[in-house]
Amino acid sequence: MTTEEVESRLGSTDGWKVEGEALYKRFEFANFAESLAFVNKVGAIAESADHHPDITFGWGYAEFRTMTHDRGGITDVDLALVKEIDSIGK
Amino acid sequence: MTTEEVESRLGSTDGWKVEGEALYKRFEFANFAESLAFVNKVGAIAESADHHPDITFGWGYAEFRTMTHDRGGITDVDLALVKEIDSIGK
Repeated sequence: MTTEEVESRLGSTDGWKVEGEALYKRFEFANFAESLAFVNKVGAIAESADHHPDITFGWGYAEFRTMTHDRGGITDVDLALVKEIDSIGK
Repeated sequence: MTTEEVESRLGSTDGWKVEGEALYKRFEFANFAESLAFVNKVGAIAESADHHPDITFGWGYAEFRTMTHDRGGITDVDLALVKEIDSIGK
């Protein structure tokens, strides 16, 4: 998918950006425990979907990057994952 | 602490390296679930120590970076944390 197609398909999905070959979003939290709790919720989604983002987190933040490694870019599977992540709110 | 002092203090601590202003180590795992389980163990250590690393993980790996933000470098608190992380094994 081209960046333009991805951006069009993201539609009103809030805050996700194309960064390199992945979709990226940063969330902010009040402390470490809240970041870790959110990361665990996303981990459960990833296991259900059998599609696993790269996650960076620490005190007060969590960042997610998703791409389809065997396709070398962003696919429908990534778009579905970011919508699921957004659906759990923060 | 200088890089030399940190390396000397690390002693036989396995696999930790000075990277920029932080101590860094990468662990590898068989899948996403094992990575996440290890991250949660480290999260519990971090909360007990009230000292929180930056963590990047995904399918089959987890990376930890620790520094003392308000001192702008590596301190005793970081050295204690990496020893605790290593003590849980993988």
